[in-house]
Amino acid sequence: MIHQASTTAPVNIATLKYWGKRDPALNLPTNNSISVTLSQDDLRTLTTASCSPDFTQDELWLNGKQEDVSGKRLVACFRELRALRHKMEDSDSSLPKLADQKLKIVSENNFPTAAGLASSAAGFAALIRAVANLYELQETPEQLSIVARQGSGSACRSLYGGYVAWEMGTESDGSDSRAVQIATADHWPEMRAAILVVSADKKDTSSTTGMQVTVHTSPLFKERVTTVVPERFAQMKKSILDRDFPTFAELTMRDSNQFHATCLDSYPPIFYLNDVSRASIRVVEAINKAAGATIAAYTFDAGPNCVIYYEDKNEELVLGALKAILGRVEGWEKHQSVDAKKIDVDERWESELANGIQRVILTKVGGDPVKTAESLINEDGSLKNSK
Amino acid sequence: MIHQASTTAPVNIATLKYWGKRDPALNLPTNNSISVTLSQDDLRTLTTASCSPDFTQDELWLNGKQEDVSGKRLVACFRELRALRHKMEDSDSSLPKLADQKLKIVSENNFPTAAGLASSAAGFAALIRAVANLYELQETPEQLSIVARQGSGSACRSLYGGYVAWEMGTESDGSDSRAVQIATADHWPEMRAAILVVSADKKDTSSTTGMQVTVHTSPLFKERVTTVVPERFAQMKKSILDRDFPTFAELTMRDSNQFHATCLDSYPPIFYLNDVSRASIRVVEAINKAAGATIAAYTFDAGPNCVIYYEDKNEELVLGALKAILGRVEGWEKHQSVDAKKIDVDERWESELANGIQRVILTKVGGDPVKTAESLINEDGSLKNSK
Repeated sequence: MIHQASTTAPVNIATLKYWGKRDPALNLPTNNSISVTLSQDDLRTLTTASCSPDFTQDELWLNGKQEDVSGKRLVACFRELRALRHKMEDSDSSLPKLADQKLKIVSENNFPTAAGLASSAAGFAALIRAVANLYELQETPEQLSIVARQGSGSACRSLYGGYVAWEMGTESDGSDSRAVQIATADHWPEMRAAILVVSADKKDTSSTTGMQVTVHTSPLFKERVTTVVPERFAQMKKSILDRDFPTFAELTMRDSNQFHATCLDSYPPIFYLNDVSRASIRVVEAINKAAGATIAAYTFDAGPNCVIYYEDKNEELVLGALKAILGRVEGWEKHQSVDAKKIDVDERWESELANGIQRVILTKVGGDPVKTAESLINEDGSLKNSK
Repeated sequence: MIHQASTTAPVNIATLKYWGKRDPALNLPTNNSISVTLSQDDLRTLTTASCSPDFTQDELWLNGKQEDVSGKRLVACFRELRALRHKMEDSDSSLPKLADQKLKIVSENNFPTAAGLASSAAGFAALIRAVANLYELQETPEQLSIVARQGSGSACRSLYGGYVAWEMGTESDGSDSRAVQIATADHWPEMRAAILVVSADKKDTSSTTGMQVTVHTSPLFKERVTTVVPERFAQMKKSILDRDFPTFAELTMRDSNQFHATCLDSYPPIFYLNDVSRASIRVVEAINKAAGATIAAYTFDAGPNCVIYYEDKNEELVLGALKAILGRVEGWEKHQSVDAKKIDVDERWESELANGIQRVILTKVGGDPVKTAESLINEDGSLKNSK
């Protein structure tokens, strides 16, 4: 007999970047960060967590492939979740004894890993949420975010929909380093995101390694975390609460640039932006110029893909300009009605973009993780056929 | 009847970068900088300065093309040089009255402008030196550097051979913002430079514009000029005096990276490095890894070309590795004897470099500007046929 519970969890894309840990073991960051949670209609991880007295070992399956469960981050998450369940079982002896059973977790993304989107945030958020559901934990998303953070820093922000802050905290044990919701998706539902997925580009440096190289070698990094980010954090929060897109957009672009600047100031230097990323930036600038206002904002995580935030009312302008350049790539299916509309942009940026982007993902701000009846595990504990 | 004098002047490539003016009109920089002067055998500007009572206007000819002489930088240089000559003529009435005659300046580079090398430094240095020779000015190179600085900031460093510092000074009139020689070329004659010239890439932003965008918009820039550069300046000077290549090299690479990081932290961001530049950096890192020591240093000015400094004793290793990738491009004529020697480097960097570099220029540290009998102006004041 097995117990099981399933959830989906969203991807989030930071607008104020997390880069640098003050405590690598606990994933405690050097600065606050902010992100927008994206719609699970387009990008989500589906995870089923199960446990059974018959299971003989903890197991984790990602996209049909069994993964190692001995990594210290996963071990920490399992340990913390079991501790919370133990506490419940200790205080109510009528509860089934699940905490000591082995766990089998099965997880699938609805987007290709090849898209180069950081899937670890959605993955760990879904895992934490699914096990919390399985264990019927009463902890709030904020409390669970402290567990998720230990799996993957930015995962803590995927426990909420909408607009989310990760407050770095000050405690050395990490007990106050957690995600809080700045606003729900409904507060500012007009937010859209267009992701330009760059054709194969091997990742330069893993973000886990890269951020610590920056912490230890960039002379400019300290200035960023001590002086620049605290001010930006307050300004960006306010711009979200005010639904002030131009301010939100400029802060987002400046912060992406500065994060990549500290990568370049690292030694040896770290590069995530390539010539296609640079072209994406110039095209977004051209869109804003054509509009005579800041209606689109680029941001880049630890890779060359460009995420462009914009508001629904400017969809024709933003997507029209992108379609004029990228109309032939995959991803326009749901936006057939948008007319390509050529804007004034340097020919070299246009061709760099046209040649370098393999697909677009068009999505929007989205909600919290969602419990689902869809399961990836059969009643007998075996895996359902993965798609 | 005309008076004339000719000189050659060298190119210099900064190892501690000049980026940012505290006074744009006077070209007063926000920080000290350091450069290596390159050999005039390979890269030089030849300039003839002449004056005659018959000339009716000031004229400037660059590479066979007449240039505008009303630009305020050129006007400032002419004014300062004439003031110095006036002082001489006022104190010695036997001297010919040259200061009030119109000037005709003719200048030619021995390297293609298309090479994308900053030619304004050598150009203004040669102009100042040629007119100073014509006027028989007794000012030292240090004093003339104050005039050259007003033409083009980095030109002040091209009035000396060897290893040169531009001390930013503190006076508001710029009277102490000048070049001083840290060491002659003979102090460390083993220094070599390989310039990897990138195939056509339109310049992103002019350096004159770009540096002021950085000054006004990069939150990290102030930290660079107030904290990082002062320390680096002292360390780099010492590494030159000690002929300590590994230290000199690491400081050079870190400073190039940081300069470009502040460009990226500007708003809108400025990009001079492209994917070919990035590949150049990775190849230099691979050379150092293969050598098990820091034997080569990359540096980039406001463009994608890579300048690699190394010492003569490592020529086989450094040029051998470059020849294995770039053996087919122009520029190896004087280095036929170097054997291509493949090092371990990621295939994508290798092909990015092989496809993106159009020629190499192989040179070394060189000396001061040199008076020459070679003239670009006939006795009757007409221009000699340019090559």
